[in-house]
Amino acid sequence: MESILSTDYYVHFQKNGYLAIEKYLETNFHSKVYILVDTNTKKDCLPLFLKEVSNASSYVVIEVPSGEIYKNLDTCLDLWTTLSELGADRKSILINLGGGVITDMGGFVASTFKRGIKFINIPTTLLSMVDASVGGKTGIDLGALKNQIGLFSNPEMVIIDTKYLKTVSEREIRSGLAEVIKYGFTFDKDIWDKIKQLKDINYKLIDDLIYRSVEIKNSVVLKDPKEENLRKALNFGHTIGHAIESYFLENEDKVALTHGEAIAAGMIIELYYSSKLFGFPMKYTNDLKSFVHKFYGKYNILESDFSPIIDLMQFDKKSINGKVNFVLLDQMENCKIDVQVDKDLLIEGINYYLK
Amino acid sequence: MESILSTDYYVHFQKNGYLAIEKYLETNFHSKVYILVDTNTKKDCLPLFLKEVSNASSYVVIEVPSGEIYKNLDTCLDLWTTLSELGADRKSILINLGGGVITDMGGFVASTFKRGIKFINIPTTLLSMVDASVGGKTGIDLGALKNQIGLFSNPEMVIIDTKYLKTVSEREIRSGLAEVIKYGFTFDKDIWDKIKQLKDINYKLIDDLIYRSVEIKNSVVLKDPKEENLRKALNFGHTIGHAIESYFLENEDKVALTHGEAIAAGMIIELYYSSKLFGFPMKYTNDLKSFVHKFYGKYNILESDFSPIIDLMQFDKKSINGKVNFVLLDQMENCKIDVQVDKDLLIEGINYYLK
Repeated sequence: MESILSTDYYVHFQKNGYLAIEKYLETNFHSKVYILVDTNTKKDCLPLFLKEVSNASSYVVIEVPSGEIYKNLDTCLDLWTTLSELGADRKSILINLGGGVITDMGGFVASTFKRGIKFINIPTTLLSMVDASVGGKTGIDLGALKNQIGLFSNPEMVIIDTKYLKTVSEREIRSGLAEVIKYGFTFDKDIWDKIKQLKDINYKLIDDLIYRSVEIKNSVVLKDPKEENLRKALNFGHTIGHAIESYFLENEDKVALTHGEAIAAGMIIELYYSSKLFGFPMKYTNDLKSFVHKFYGKYNILESDFSPIIDLMQFDKKSINGKVNFVLLDQMENCKIDVQVDKDLLIEGINYYLK
Repeated sequence: MESILSTDYYVHFQKNGYLAIEKYLETNFHSKVYILVDTNTKKDCLPLFLKEVSNASSYVVIEVPSGEIYKNLDTCLDLWTTLSELGADRKSILINLGGGVITDMGGFVASTFKRGIKFINIPTTLLSMVDASVGGKTGIDLGALKNQIGLFSNPEMVIIDTKYLKTVSEREIRSGLAEVIKYGFTFDKDIWDKIKQLKDINYKLIDDLIYRSVEIKNSVVLKDPKEENLRKALNFGHTIGHAIESYFLENEDKVALTHGEAIAAGMIIELYYSSKLFGFPMKYTNDLKSFVHKFYGKYNILESDFSPIIDLMQFDKKSINGKVNFVLLDQMENCKIDVQVDKDLLIEGINYYLK
């Protein structure tokens, strides 16, 4: 598969990635190469990676625990301290090998260590391949608030190798698929037409969908790198989706959802708002709901959860002056950005999801 | 005094600054304006600032404790949390009113809150006026390691108003003067010729020296924004100076030094290396030593302190592959960058300072 050029770096696929990284390390002066993994990717992905490169022993491995709850300032403090203690300097390079937590947090840590060292991302989950691989977003969570701390900073390159997908659970694949569905509704309805027929996970189809998703996301971020207009469309499903995700993560009575599970629910609810406010065809809204309920299940949102979920949306990064801004659709592939939704409709949407 | 244009923002002086900030806030959409102060600048500088602007009541004040020891991740966590709780969003603006701790840390917090909000710097100490006002460095300390975490990020504008200098102690003024002396040795020996005659602080002279220092620093950072070559010259005196500063800060038996006090000592020691390695005229080295000993005093560095100070230099941000890099001079206004010094000479230099 051909490499995709983003702002000033490439996304390489499969074997091309390892050729590119070897060439990069040969031709760019660097003092040391660190590779950031979590407990899972250390076990499952690191051996696969090291098999592909020469000088495997020259990579210094740094490990953090697995999971979104570690995507926080405490882990960053550990990482900055570890880098200092290992003697990392401005010419050191950090390779982030893992899911979105590792690439987002590793990118943030690298970009702020001694005012910025270079980094390379190797996403190992479907979600991080289609969502976090281009666009330069780095960040960590602040308590329940996702990605509240971070900055825009580009990697030197991204390597996508779908063999890493074999190391993650089906639940993780489903999670990533929600972001692919998002590209379907917002930019390319062919994607949705393919996915809606899925009864189960189909890896061959997923390979193609990854490439197409990266193409779409890349063309969007090239046009609007700082998310001032067009790029906001990629937040479809995320305004209430993030709030649901945060709420389930923080609440001891709930089982934490994956990002994609929360976004899948968020898209249903936001499509409902789209149908009510902009006449988006209710047929598609119903289609998505029945697909999601079958493919992801239905989560236990109680009436007493509505208010705290709605309150959490205040902290959405698109909010301005306390107004929560949604991305809605008036038809397939056509977004309306910065739309406000009144409280009655907010609740009606959640009830629609639950029916 | 004419405003100085940096990369994409202006440094305004005195009254021009307040005209510029009012115009900026009128013409650029913003949701809220926060003003970051420390305990000292809240009491002494904030009233002076608010007198100069209309709508003084629309500024939301955020206070942190005064002092370098608070320039850390804990304070940042408080600030990010406070901004979240106060409802700050991507269109909020942060004005940093204070010394280098406030402008460095406030710039870092703003640049990483929700992936970056805009900020304005109003340095209130001589050090922050001449050193931190241009160049886009933001950052915080990591334990004893100064500015280990941070990034390059430019403010919307900088306002320098020397009336704020009346609010700081003479010791602080002396501290800032060390950076001005640095510009004298590295870029403009007229500055040194003026300063070396000083018996006491002369505010009229300082006003002129501030403008000249900002001019010099600005021309340097425009040529080399990311500190790849020329800009490194501005680290003259800082390699061992920072190590001394960190060591005195962390060591309970020592009285903490101001940044400038440590840099003044650092410049003497690094000039000594310059004389030994590059034939820099010993006369100037001796001149600086006698001026510094008179103007700043001599610090109590014991033989048992030598090793830990030398070890701390490993963490200097210019170090590559464990090699500590110095900026030395072969003559006035002519720097040699990335010079290594062997251990015997390192110690000889400290002994020279102490004699």
